[in-house]
Amino acid sequence: MGHRAGKVYLVGAGPGDPELITQKGRRLLAQADSILFDHLASEALLDLAPPAAERVYVGKKKSTHAYSQEEICGMMIERARRGLSVVRLKGGDPFIFGRGGEEAEALFDAGVPFEVVPGVTAPLGLAAYTGVPLTHRDHTSVVTFVTGHSVAEIDWDKVGAAETLVIFMGLTTFGEIAREIVARGRPADTPAMAVRWATRPDQQTVVGTVGTLAELVERRGLKPPATIIVGEVVRLREKLDWFSRLPLAGQRIVVTRAQEQAGHLAARLRSLGADAIELPAIEILPAEDYAGLDAAVANLKSYDWLIFTSANGVRFFLERLDRSPRDIRAIRGRVAAIGPATKTALEQLHLKVDRMGAEFVAEGLLEAFDGETLSGARILLPRAATLS
Amino acid sequence: MGHRAGKVYLVGAGPGDPELITQKGRRLLAQADSILFDHLASEALLDLAPPAAERVYVGKKKSTHAYSQEEICGMMIERARRGLSVVRLKGGDPFIFGRGGEEAEALFDAGVPFEVVPGVTAPLGLAAYTGVPLTHRDHTSVVTFVTGHSVAEIDWDKVGAAETLVIFMGLTTFGEIAREIVARGRPADTPAMAVRWATRPDQQTVVGTVGTLAELVERRGLKPPATIIVGEVVRLREKLDWFSRLPLAGQRIVVTRAQEQAGHLAARLRSLGADAIELPAIEILPAEDYAGLDAAVANLKSYDWLIFTSANGVRFFLERLDRSPRDIRAIRGRVAAIGPATKTALEQLHLKVDRMGAEFVAEGLLEAFDGETLSGARILLPRAATLS
Repeated sequence: MGHRAGKVYLVGAGPGDPELITQKGRRLLAQADSILFDHLASEALLDLAPPAAERVYVGKKKSTHAYSQEEICGMMIERARRGLSVVRLKGGDPFIFGRGGEEAEALFDAGVPFEVVPGVTAPLGLAAYTGVPLTHRDHTSVVTFVTGHSVAEIDWDKVGAAETLVIFMGLTTFGEIAREIVARGRPADTPAMAVRWATRPDQQTVVGTVGTLAELVERRGLKPPATIIVGEVVRLREKLDWFSRLPLAGQRIVVTRAQEQAGHLAARLRSLGADAIELPAIEILPAEDYAGLDAAVANLKSYDWLIFTSANGVRFFLERLDRSPRDIRAIRGRVAAIGPATKTALEQLHLKVDRMGAEFVAEGLLEAFDGETLSGARILLPRAATLS
Repeated sequence: MGHRAGKVYLVGAGPGDPELITQKGRRLLAQADSILFDHLASEALLDLAPPAAERVYVGKKKSTHAYSQEEICGMMIERARRGLSVVRLKGGDPFIFGRGGEEAEALFDAGVPFEVVPGVTAPLGLAAYTGVPLTHRDHTSVVTFVTGHSVAEIDWDKVGAAETLVIFMGLTTFGEIAREIVARGRPADTPAMAVRWATRPDQQTVVGTVGTLAELVERRGLKPPATIIVGEVVRLREKLDWFSRLPLAGQRIVVTRAQEQAGHLAARLRSLGADAIELPAIEILPAEDYAGLDAAVANLKSYDWLIFTSANGVRFFLERLDRSPRDIRAIRGRVAAIGPATKTALEQLHLKVDRMGAEFVAEGLLEAFDGETLSGARILLPRAATLS
């Protein structure tokens, strides 16, 4: 690692749904040595990094500043100088209200090489997932983005009467902002909407007008961080809000399959709108003692049948085979699978399955041998240990 | 397919670099039956769809409107009603100056289910790849997006004197826009920049001021489509423009390896800034006649050695093996590889390589057998045909 030149990648994590990161962001996370991440980034993205990569939370919460901006820059520089590939993962996009410009300047000034990878900015995630286009031929051709962080510092004359106004982090200050824009001619009955956790299954939306939104937000108990959109386009959500109409929208579903197998089912549930939580009730473990399996592998040529009762069994068997001095050529007997998933796992090894059970349980597999005498046959049954 | 409910996905393709599409967009392309795509979307993204998927160009060029907006909506609706999964691939993000709102409304009115997948909007791709943050604590906290498409329709009073002004499609009308904003108090010496093909290796940038940009664009021959950024933030590119400083920036490199193997090298070159063009000078072809290999596979158990001279040779051998009634258990002889890539291909099959050449060419492999008598040994050498 000492010979490698370090580099910092300022990467936009997107608006919340971890599937809304870019391909490039995903690739860089998968190659990272160190990840410095914010409060807003989806923590599921951290799973994309190698297990050995360092993960440091540097985000800010209201009262507990984990690290100052200077400290964050110092951490990036120090790691890059050690030759590490550093991903600075920022919510949304790094170059709009993300302070990415300041971080990139600090890297330049320190002579540290960097790249910037854009992301889907929060308001565009929100627009897509609430059915509120920021522009529309009939309603608006001007969109203005401001931050609600420090209302007094903004010259509200410069915001004009922008047809669509997007306010980052403006939940607690919207009352003030509403007064500023109404004073400059924006009608108080203009539609306005606040959204928290946009694009996530737990997305929360409060809809009102410039005049009523601040009170509605308080009454409904909506908490920061949230993004606000003001403009006639908010009306379009009555037609275009596809997300809350998904068949499993608002449903929280716990997936209890083993970790390795839960991902596919959880992804499918999420695409139907559910908040799928992976909570494996069983864990597939390597056997505690491989002495038996290793002895069988050493003597593999002598077995008449290899019977696999799960894809995990295939996986553990291969792991032991690869560690042994033997290889797949040592399989001389016939091969049986309990069902189609196990059969597929074997076919990926270019093994043709000689026998498959009809009911995908052990008893069904025994029926597949019905009428055949197994007496005297040497049979190997590699299995994973299951902890429930 | 008749039983499946059709659906339309309005997907943001991102700003140009095909790696800047979201994971979700990529997944939906990979599952699509039909793709209706615009002029601006990177055509490399079409390779992500299944080979059998329909690809229809519905974009608009200056004078040749391929399809009207109504025709495009009609095509989406008709395909979804046939049960197809349709991806409507739009440059940047569908809900900002993309007419995605109108297309989603047409789908809603027709009762066709749809989803909207946000993308990295062009100005944020441009910001990242030119080193111009749209916001910066020292310079700006108000960003306004407008379209330069029809200057007369925009109420320039509403644009105010936005600190950062982003103009979509404003290359040919920027002279007019400059007069409008200078008349409302924007200094004519405010920095301004026009960028074409942002985030692509052939990204073109023209930098000037509000007063000079239109003339500079004409003199340099920059053509639409392009995005313009006006504001003090443009000055930051002197420090933050990492993209044009990549080691291979501006270099156009032709990769002549065979198609199947060019992708990895091309991706590596692109990450160093090169415009890597894949132009395979050799094509790896299946042999014209497999009779010889098939006969050997049928009689595999009788071979003493299998010698693989390329990873392609391994691939074609496996294809024939999978089609035969035999499987990998029929390999009883020893296995040799010409070099490490071929060795890796064999190890992925859980085969341990018994002999490897030292110089990765056929002669080196023969030396590996030095001192060993091969007389009388049956040797199989599966090879791919190479067309140069």
